[in-house]
Amino acid sequence: MSSSTKRHALGIVGLGLLVAAAGSQITVTGQQSAALAIKEIGSMHVGGGNVSVTGAAMPTTAPAGRGSVPYDPNGDYEAGQMYVQYVKLAAPRAKYPLLLVHGGGLTGVTWETKPDGGPGWQMFFLKAGHDVYIGDAMERGRASWARYPEIYKGPPTMVIKKIAWETFRIGPLGSYQTDPAKRTALPGVLFPTAYFDQFAKQMVPMWGSNGPDIQKAYDALVQKICPCVIVVHSQGGNFGFNMVRHAPDKVKALVALEPSGSPDPAKVDLKPVMNVPTLVVWADFLEGYERWLEIRTNISKYEDALRAAGAVVDHVDLPKTGIKGNSHMMMMDRNSDQVAGVVQKWFEKQGLMK
Amino acid sequence: MSSSTKRHALGIVGLGLLVAAAGSQITVTGQQSAALAIKEIGSMHVGGGNVSVTGAAMPTTAPAGRGSVPYDPNGDYEAGQMYVQYVKLAAPRAKYPLLLVHGGGLTGVTWETKPDGGPGWQMFFLKAGHDVYIGDAMERGRASWARYPEIYKGPPTMVIKKIAWETFRIGPLGSYQTDPAKRTALPGVLFPTAYFDQFAKQMVPMWGSNGPDIQKAYDALVQKICPCVIVVHSQGGNFGFNMVRHAPDKVKALVALEPSGSPDPAKVDLKPVMNVPTLVVWADFLEGYERWLEIRTNISKYEDALRAAGAVVDHVDLPKTGIKGNSHMMMMDRNSDQVAGVVQKWFEKQGLMK
Repeated sequence: MSSSTKRHALGIVGLGLLVAAAGSQITVTGQQSAALAIKEIGSMHVGGGNVSVTGAAMPTTAPAGRGSVPYDPNGDYEAGQMYVQYVKLAAPRAKYPLLLVHGGGLTGVTWETKPDGGPGWQMFFLKAGHDVYIGDAMERGRASWARYPEIYKGPPTMVIKKIAWETFRIGPLGSYQTDPAKRTALPGVLFPTAYFDQFAKQMVPMWGSNGPDIQKAYDALVQKICPCVIVVHSQGGNFGFNMVRHAPDKVKALVALEPSGSPDPAKVDLKPVMNVPTLVVWADFLEGYERWLEIRTNISKYEDALRAAGAVVDHVDLPKTGIKGNSHMMMMDRNSDQVAGVVQKWFEKQGLMK
Repeated sequence: MSSSTKRHALGIVGLGLLVAAAGSQITVTGQQSAALAIKEIGSMHVGGGNVSVTGAAMPTTAPAGRGSVPYDPNGDYEAGQMYVQYVKLAAPRAKYPLLLVHGGGLTGVTWETKPDGGPGWQMFFLKAGHDVYIGDAMERGRASWARYPEIYKGPPTMVIKKIAWETFRIGPLGSYQTDPAKRTALPGVLFPTAYFDQFAKQMVPMWGSNGPDIQKAYDALVQKICPCVIVVHSQGGNFGFNMVRHAPDKVKALVALEPSGSPDPAKVDLKPVMNVPTLVVWADFLEGYERWLEIRTNISKYEDALRAAGAVVDHVDLPKTGIKGNSHMMMMDRNSDQVAGVVQKWFEKQGLMK
């Protein structure tokens, strides 16, 4: 048994080989591709509760294959819950599980296989040694959604492809066309534009009126699964900053990727979060988008307030570090592993790995 | 190196030990819990395409945190796609991947961790050596759903808890109460009734009018990921029988757990599916539910037609084999592994394992 093939408690061996579980010694011979040693894959719903609907009109509809019959929607529902799926390693290298929080109009799919079929951040961070939790916010994806106007206040917002193409900084304002061949992308953008329609299949309806309830479910999730480290994206930013404020003992670090909002720093006491380090990451092309520049300026004020309270806050503009071409969907861009590497390096610097 | 610790190409070693990848030899020493050797975890959307909406009214709503603004829903969407998530083993023992298809008002969560926190069929079949694919039907969960009446024909059906409690044969007809303490369960039922409301959090809206489009997405999925073996539940039954009919060369076997529907055997040619073996499984307590008895009788006619066409069809009424107490949600019942074992044994009998 050569020492080079003797491995101890590794979640993954990067080149060629397996594998192990806690407290084990493993010898592997032969040639093979890397594999992950997984303890458990699972999921749960967190938060929410019973809501009884009465007095709702009876539309005429029915389950598939049974014809059209009157359907009575009055009765009890569970509402307000969110969904989280987890992959636990046999031997994580990270001290805490990692929770990945998606942005607006999207679900946890954001972090899975990329629209172009390449591995997403879920695989990246599993391979880097993290237990990975991926949430679907209340009202999105597998979290389910509830009736309006009886439970939610009104109809959802549905993100049209033009908004995603232009707001997520894949193409310039005004460049979206229905015909993919006629769309103009930003010069040098690393989003795989040929797969934009595939990405658009991930988009789900969202309700502007549900913010407080979405937050409540995220806070319940933190109580359930943390201590943990959290990565948030876009609309997840505000939820993430609040998750930290509401449980500064449970959240060990926060990474905010282009957060689209934050609490008003003038209205919140940030002293309690002084021990939670934060990394804020911005991608490329913001200059062409007034709204994004405004958002970045607002978030910078929150960063300043965190620093004033004594917290570690690192701010990375990727282009300034030489990483150019990223869209708002940096976890789906062709160099997604490179961006994930920036985050992983920060985790290491913060002492979050064993 | 003792021979008892030398393992070859196993997806999992049940008692105590790991692990391996294809073509490898592994020696493990020390005590540890079982782990899975995973090659890849990922997901994709399959099917659907662009739909352009014009002339829709503009409601007043907005993303969280930005106040109430007019919102224009007109534009392009992707619609008609479904979602599938996969876990691929480093060294599967099964000859083909396994696709798990949920029932009405539900998503792929059906197969994950059970509402009581116990491991679900996903983990069972991974440990048994199958690559496992889990779908969310078009319109459900992470597949997303589309506007009505512009894209879907009308509003969804939402399953109230009373219907689930009584139709899924957890409690007798008329036994549901909002207060969990006041509900009456079927005597001896193995559904973990204390976790029924947790189960209800999994329920999602469904559209009776979408049947043909749901089928289309499932058929596209079969073309994408098969050859495979398919397990369907409840409403998934009809979709599964049709997946087999539409691709009898791609589907190597079908297991239908309490299928709620099938094609009309008088109207379809079943000769082409004669080489696809089918297992139909029914749980307990059907006698108290006229509708379920009627469904089982209808499905039996389809089974007879399959047999007449030359196909292998096995029909299992679990109580007749001594397995009593199962609800319609047999994959969530306390003895879910026992029921999965019946299916796994059938896979072995059909020569579907290496």
